[in-house]
Amino acid sequence: MDYDAIVVGGGHAGIEASLALSRIGFKTLLITQNLDAIGRLSCNPAIGGLSKGNIVREVDALGGEMAHLIDHSMIQYRILNRRRGPAVQAPRAQADKFTYARLAKETLESEHNLSLFMDTVVDFLLDPTGKRLTGVITERQHTISANVVVLTTGTFMEGKIFIGEYDAPNGRLDEPSAIGLGTNLRKKGFPVGRLKTGTPARVRKSSLDFDKMEVQDGEELMMPFSFDYDSINRPQVPCYITWTNEKTHAIIRDNIHRSPLYGGKIVGTGPRYCPSIEDKVVRFPDRNRHQIFVEPEGIGTEEMYLNGISSSLPEDVQWDFVHSIEGLEHAQIMRPAYAVEYDFINPQALYPSLESKLVENLFIAGQTNGTSGYEEAACQGLMAGINAAQKLKGEPPLVLSRNEAYTGVLIDDLVTMGTKEPYRMFTSRAEYRLNLRHDSCDQRLTEKGFRVGLQSEESLSRLRQKLEKMETVKDLLRQRKLADKSAIQALKMPEVTMASLQESIPELSGFEEPIKYQVELDVKYEGYINRQERQINRFEKLESLHISQDFDYDALDGLSTEGKEKLKLVRPISVGQASRISGVRNSDIALLIVHLDRGGHRER
Amino acid sequence: MDYDAIVVGGGHAGIEASLALSRIGFKTLLITQNLDAIGRLSCNPAIGGLSKGNIVREVDALGGEMAHLIDHSMIQYRILNRRRGPAVQAPRAQADKFTYARLAKETLESEHNLSLFMDTVVDFLLDPTGKRLTGVITERQHTISANVVVLTTGTFMEGKIFIGEYDAPNGRLDEPSAIGLGTNLRKKGFPVGRLKTGTPARVRKSSLDFDKMEVQDGEELMMPFSFDYDSINRPQVPCYITWTNEKTHAIIRDNIHRSPLYGGKIVGTGPRYCPSIEDKVVRFPDRNRHQIFVEPEGIGTEEMYLNGISSSLPEDVQWDFVHSIEGLEHAQIMRPAYAVEYDFINPQALYPSLESKLVENLFIAGQTNGTSGYEEAACQGLMAGINAAQKLKGEPPLVLSRNEAYTGVLIDDLVTMGTKEPYRMFTSRAEYRLNLRHDSCDQRLTEKGFRVGLQSEESLSRLRQKLEKMETVKDLLRQRKLADKSAIQALKMPEVTMASLQESIPELSGFEEPIKYQVELDVKYEGYINRQERQINRFEKLESLHISQDFDYDALDGLSTEGKEKLKLVRPISVGQASRISGVRNSDIALLIVHLDRGGHRER
Ligand SMILES: Cc1cc2nc3c(=O)[nH]c(=O)nc-3n(C[C@H](O)[C@H](O)[C@H](O)COP(=O)(O)OP(=O)(O)OC[C@H]3O[C@@H](n4cnc5c(N)ncnc54)[C@H](O)[C@@H]3O)c2cc1C
Ligand SMILES: Cc1cc2nc3c(=O)[nH]c(=O)nc-3n(C[C@H](O)[C@H](O)[C@H](O)COP(=O)(O)OP(=O)(O)OC[C@H]3O[C@@H](n4cnc5c(N)ncnc54)[C@H](O)[C@@H]3O)c2cc1C
Repeated sequence: MDYDAIVVGGGHAGIEASLALSRIGFKTLLITQNLDAIGRLSCNPAIGGLSKGNIVREVDALGGEMAHLIDHSMIQYRILNRRRGPAVQAPRAQADKFTYARLAKETLESEHNLSLFMDTVVDFLLDPTGKRLTGVITERQHTISANVVVLTTGTFMEGKIFIGEYDAPNGRLDEPSAIGLGTNLRKKGFPVGRLKTGTPARVRKSSLDFDKMEVQDGEELMMPFSFDYDSINRPQVPCYITWTNEKTHAIIRDNIHRSPLYGGKIVGTGPRYCPSIEDKVVRFPDRNRHQIFVEPEGIGTEEMYLNGISSSLPEDVQWDFVHSIEGLEHAQIMRPAYAVEYDFINPQALYPSLESKLVENLFIAGQTNGTSGYEEAACQGLMAGINAAQKLKGEPPLVLSRNEAYTGVLIDDLVTMGTKEPYRMFTSRAEYRLNLRHDSCDQRLTEKGFRVGLQSEESLSRLRQKLEKMETVKDLLRQRKLADKSAIQALKMPEVTMASLQESIPELSGFEEPIKYQVELDVKYEGYINRQERQINRFEKLESLHISQDFDYDALDGLSTEGKEKLKLVRPISVGQASRISGVRNSDIALLIVHLDRGGHRER
Repeated sequence: MDYDAIVVGGGHAGIEASLALSRIGFKTLLITQNLDAIGRLSCNPAIGGLSKGNIVREVDALGGEMAHLIDHSMIQYRILNRRRGPAVQAPRAQADKFTYARLAKETLESEHNLSLFMDTVVDFLLDPTGKRLTGVITERQHTISANVVVLTTGTFMEGKIFIGEYDAPNGRLDEPSAIGLGTNLRKKGFPVGRLKTGTPARVRKSSLDFDKMEVQDGEELMMPFSFDYDSINRPQVPCYITWTNEKTHAIIRDNIHRSPLYGGKIVGTGPRYCPSIEDKVVRFPDRNRHQIFVEPEGIGTEEMYLNGISSSLPEDVQWDFVHSIEGLEHAQIMRPAYAVEYDFINPQALYPSLESKLVENLFIAGQTNGTSGYEEAACQGLMAGINAAQKLKGEPPLVLSRNEAYTGVLIDDLVTMGTKEPYRMFTSRAEYRLNLRHDSCDQRLTEKGFRVGLQSEESLSRLRQKLEKMETVKDLLRQRKLADKSAIQALKMPEVTMASLQESIPELSGFEEPIKYQVELDVKYEGYINRQERQINRFEKLESLHISQDFDYDALDGLSTEGKEKLKLVRPISVGQASRISGVRNSDIALLIVHLDRGGHRER
């Protein structure tokens, strides 16, 4: 074998997969179409956001890289929903795109066990059984063997971009797509489909009228996504807010027939939850305006991103509707908005380890699995990398549960239910979201990262120290009295914050911000959390009822026909997972529980 | 008109052209295929070198940008030939590629009169006469009008790359070429041909054995290319030197039939003076080794450039021959070497202003004119930009003479003689090279830059101050006695340097390095310079005998048939230029002088 592992694609999934494999100790090759495009932020220049910010911190707690990349390139930091419950608070940062990508490339290059090679993978090598991957073939006719392969093709597999009547075989504007692999995967029987997503225009900063927009500043203090350090000190730049209006919508409505989407040129399904502006106008005819965030693409560049108005309308229409918006009347468009359509693989064809059911040793991650978003890609890349490494070591895969990480929710959703449109994470997808707070990811995941060989001793002991410090702070709050109650009781009241307590308890200023932030959330939301714990106990019972991969559903009498079919397709690893498959009935689940409790189950 | 000027292509020529036009005050649009590729260093990560370093400083003195870009991104600085004559001394710097390109993009973006747009130009708009350009048409069907257009397509016009049996429609590896324009220019009657050039592999730093190589450090002190400031302070990194050997050459010889060049796949002519390693091996069978400079591509990246072994052999052959070289035995290849073939336009179809003779208002610059090299591209881009601006103002073009700038030599060579292979600048191309010293470009050119509206008052007054300071230093040297002679006489001796004088004349330490460096060269080489001045006087006589663009050669009796043909093709602007056209005889020149001296000439 030339390498222990090959990772295909240097996007956000590929970065995590290749770093995980090589850091765990495996000789890894990353093959990517263009070394200059590693870690490029295809769409919005931001990392994090609701539930996505949590994912970044999960990746970090497990030993992944995304948090470091954004920590070293952020130019604005915000905590969203600060005034609402802890489960829906999340960090989000604007990135300097240029710095983000440069750092990603240099981080990969400096990894001892990891080699980088510029080429495009066009086919797989299988062993004589046809059921086991042994390597890859590239466009330039290299045949490279490896024990495991992680596939992360993003929007590039047979990618095609659309702007009105114009289309081109690109994964991003002017970047050639990866041609050939999609066709070969179809031939091999993979369930390949088409999805689409879109990006808005980039406009020139100095041509915008910010006086007509609302300013959106960052937090006073940047806080790191990573648990490895306590602070970041960098000047911040503002974002701006403006709105579409009736005139904008009229222009779009009048030209909707010129959209490749409505004209039928694009066959792939777009993201319902991250629609293009033409989708919004058509689907919500009553709304007389839609919000636009105007975000800098970097600290030194004039390019600004128009978050909220992605489009595939022709450029003359884009020109007109952009100029109808307040503050954008004279906007110079530097890059047009466009849509991209690409091949994805139905993730139901994967085990929860992200290994393919069809072909052993192939792991698939990122946009290829039908998701959309950098964070969604990164966490899958990390898990695919970890599990490919586990496989190489002959150890069982690491499967995160829905009650310990958004990453667990995401992968469980994908492999259990598949997806018909680009899958994006939302807080609401997680039943036990109170348990998935961003500030406590390390408590749930650092040790798991350590056990698979990715996290360091230092991170573990940092975690221990953090927990001790949190206890010290809690003790302090318990001891101090404020008027009639203890400080800890006071903190439960909505109007009392840690910052306000600091005036009467000056010792608090000796503790790092992240410590105090986490204690505050812990204390404020103790009641909710206790309630959730009880639900989780019930949930965990079903999750712990494992089902073997070769369980014979045909032999189990009484299953509904549809239930049996779906169970055979998904091959859930637990009754918990089985219960989330659409088409599987409660009576099917009851049957399974009775059968497995009788001893019919064994650990996978 | 949508814009005063359009520049096509954001490479080194396009950067200078678009900055010149917009800084002089014209509303300019730069259209380039990919905003992320602006200012990319396609080949070696270095700027400057013999005669090329001079060009960079000429560009700076005229008000161009290249010197600033390299000054802010250099990671090693050297003066080549420090121990030889002043005419052959020249600065050369390694660049951090990433920083260079980022800075280039951000500099363009911040220019008020300049807009950037991402698209590919596929055709020109002509007025009804067909002899006047009025705008461009792009791949995405934009029709944009302007009074002048500067064309700088680099290696992208119908570009095609080759690696052994593999080829792809790229301008650089994985970057789509500009398809369509070449065909349309042929249809319009432009003399379009094919040229080719090549680039070596990029290898991973940590896989190299530097113990087996010679270290090449930079100068102790970095000196700026630009005349706008006196010093640069940045840590430097070393380069390394190794050599090919008999084994390397044997591998190449054994596989030469697999080269697309020798197999006939590539029709374009390659650079004789910058040959691929297979060319060197075939053309110099007696040489048992060739030198390789191993150069860092940046400060943070692992990519290293193998200067000296560009190739288009298949990758398995590259793999073998790279590994046969000392220090590269275990080199990991990150990007393969490759050749690129592209359309160029015979520059004899241009006036010395770089305006097309075929179509008015079209200026052409850079690799499109058959040159190779960043500096060669930049100086042409600058002159095309300046002269497009002069045209817009209704003023005569700025044509630099062969005795005032390498830029003048380059453009005169191109438009007079054309080129059959990629044209590269060499010191030896300049007859009056003693006059073209890099340290005195400002004295020759800053005022010209000021007169066309590109240089600032400050630069002019900086120049005046510099000249005064140089006089002060020279006076000081004249007054001080060292043993039996004045310091200025002592400095003429080869073993005496300015640095050594500083011990006995401590006041010298109060002057900036560039001042002292230039005085040293002035003093040391005064004799040569005086001799050259006399030659230049003779040369200038012929250059000042102007020939009108519509001069009727047919009406001039006695011209040789070939001479007449060539004169009509090139349409030289002076008898000087006429005398350099191959095929024009001495008797033809004599005839011209007699005729023009009689009053047959007038200023263009
Ligand atoms: C136009 C556009 C609009 C988008 N809109 C949104 C949005 O609205 N919201 C959102 O959250 N996300 C959006 N994204 C998606 C977001 O960019 C991706 O989700 C994220 O980048 C996915 O990461 P990834 O690693 O899966 O793939 P990518 O970041 O796409 O990276 C894939 C990498 O793999 C390389 N590659 C692909 N195939 C091969 C091969 N066969 N051989 C070698 N290398 C290969 C590619 O060159 C690329 O570098 C958009 C992307 C695009 C292009
Ligand atoms: C493989 C390779 C090997 C090389 N080897 C050497 C060498 O050995 N020695 C040496 O001195 N130089 C070498 N060079 C050449 C050096 O890179 C060029 O001389 C220099 O970059 C030329 O600058 P330019 O501005 O003319 O073109 P480029 O730097 O090529 O820039 C041209 C720009 O214009 C854009 N463009 C082109 N056509 C269009 C269009 N129709 N519409 C819109 N945009 C367009 C392109 O996308 C590109 O960004 C090599 C280049 C390559 C690619």
